[in-house]
Amino acid sequence: MTTLPVNLDDVKAAAARIAPHVHRTPVLTSRTADAACGARLFFKCETFQRVGAFKARGAFSRLTLLSREQMRRGVVAFSSGNHAQAVALAARDLGVPATIVMPDDAPALKLAATRGYGAEVILYDRRKEDREAIAGRLVQERGLTLVPPFDDEAVIAGQGTAALELLAEVPDLDVLVTPCGGAGLLAGTAVAGTALRPGLRVFGVEPEAGDDVARSLREGWRVAIPVPETIADSLQTTRVGERNFAILQALVEGVLTVSDLELRRAMAFLFSRMKLVVEPGGSAAAAALHAGRVPAVAGRRVGVVLSGGNVDAARFGELVAGLPA
Amino acid sequence: MTTLPVNLDDVKAAAARIAPHVHRTPVLTSRTADAACGARLFFKCETFQRVGAFKARGAFSRLTLLSREQMRRGVVAFSSGNHAQAVALAARDLGVPATIVMPDDAPALKLAATRGYGAEVILYDRRKEDREAIAGRLVQERGLTLVPPFDDEAVIAGQGTAALELLAEVPDLDVLVTPCGGAGLLAGTAVAGTALRPGLRVFGVEPEAGDDVARSLREGWRVAIPVPETIADSLQTTRVGERNFAILQALVEGVLTVSDLELRRAMAFLFSRMKLVVEPGGSAAAAALHAGRVPAVAGRRVGVVLSGGNVDAARFGELVAGLPA
Repeated sequence: MTTLPVNLDDVKAAAARIAPHVHRTPVLTSRTADAACGARLFFKCETFQRVGAFKARGAFSRLTLLSREQMRRGVVAFSSGNHAQAVALAARDLGVPATIVMPDDAPALKLAATRGYGAEVILYDRRKEDREAIAGRLVQERGLTLVPPFDDEAVIAGQGTAALELLAEVPDLDVLVTPCGGAGLLAGTAVAGTALRPGLRVFGVEPEAGDDVARSLREGWRVAIPVPETIADSLQTTRVGERNFAILQALVEGVLTVSDLELRRAMAFLFSRMKLVVEPGGSAAAAALHAGRVPAVAGRRVGVVLSGGNVDAARFGELVAGLPA
Repeated sequence: MTTLPVNLDDVKAAAARIAPHVHRTPVLTSRTADAACGARLFFKCETFQRVGAFKARGAFSRLTLLSREQMRRGVVAFSSGNHAQAVALAARDLGVPATIVMPDDAPALKLAATRGYGAEVILYDRRKEDREAIAGRLVQERGLTLVPPFDDEAVIAGQGTAALELLAEVPDLDVLVTPCGGAGLLAGTAVAGTALRPGLRVFGVEPEAGDDVARSLREGWRVAIPVPETIADSLQTTRVGERNFAILQALVEGVLTVSDLELRRAMAFLFSRMKLVVEPGGSAAAAALHAGRVPAVAGRRVGVVLSGGNVDAARFGELVAGLPA
């Protein structure tokens, strides 16, 4: 039996390192949601995490492992979304210079937020340039340390701390469902969840239009797809991470898909009935339950990770307009 | 010295009675909010309470004191919304028939929810008819027990349980701020807060257009006003309760006012920066802090009650449209 790249001790060590920096997010319950899904649901609300998403866990987990010399030289990340904010925030808190490579057509608000955390932003033309190549050059030329968005042991261990907290609060879960992009959160969740609760069934949920992880698990290799067309901007990954995939193959029951309409319906339900602001990708696990796509949950105790809430009010309004509460 | 109508023991007794029925709501913090207000804020999120507002506490507190005969005959309540839902829910959970007298312009979501809990709803025109007279008739004709929205010892004690929980979690608060309509929440908060933490400065916040409680405290008697024109539908009361006023006079530092625009700005901030859905009236305490209207909070530890989140998505979008995040 091969050793997996991350184990429960790694997640526990990450939890200890990041504790001073991240929120222990609340677990909410709702009898209305339970009735709608026919199960007993426990919502782990990473929408209330710093930077509004679980990504802060992985970023702090990775940055707290840097050597003094690496901290002095600084870190680089490429992302236009939650990972960029998380790395910029962690770097600022830990006194590390951060460079974030972002597309020049990124929303002004995201650019401003990243710069607001004190990061240097390097813009690139996404039609002509390759962000990984730019980041690679910065690693070489400036001696920066790259902080990968998901395919990294420390990042996976950090993301697993959300499940560690959830199972400490609700030890007797039968099922645990998380959104799935590059599978940092799903892999960390599977490691922590199945170690703490043998027999726990762990599922990931990805957008129908970007079902590369579901296909990868079926086909046994890491399928690459073009950037998927979906409202779930935080789940628009094109290929699951290598370390992540090894963990998923060993520990995850399955990866399910939801349509954009199902994501919007879940967002509307979470807003109206639970008073929660959840971004499209962040509501994927809730959407799968709400749409009845998670097998054998009737009467079970089900953990649901709401992974992020970074969506502006105008966009939110467009997405939930006209949907039933 | 006169004895106040409610004391800390009453609040503790209410907490024990309602514990099986209500949520212990989370207390959230946000460094962004702290920076914006120049204080250390602790948000008690009653938006996540059952029925989406603190009102569930008072309703369960009152209904759990009914005799078997009173339970058999049923209860009646008049309310613009959250109290109605709360009484309907508590009645359903405890197997008590409920009749709710509601204005015909109450938010559709609140009407639907009240009916959804199985209550009989009687509509009236709030500019022409007197809801208290209608409810009084039902008490006489049908032998129902009236559940007052705020001017009642058991209701005040129930609302005070939110502050009991908050101070158990954050004992060293300097200031505690709540929205104020009829002052059930404010009175209960003042009783629990000042007893547990002598010297705690307790403030209420009401809409500028409905400043009857601030005026009542200044003038020393319970001023009555016409139904105020404000977006804060849950704070459209016309006169503070008698019991409530006695408590406020003894224990509250002051009642502040906020404009509708300040309420909307707070809602937008809470949505974008804290991922919280808060209704206009529910954000009054946060709005007063956000607008810099609460005296001497710089560097202090401040409890902020977010009292409810019952606002539908379309209305929410209208209210926060075009406001800065």
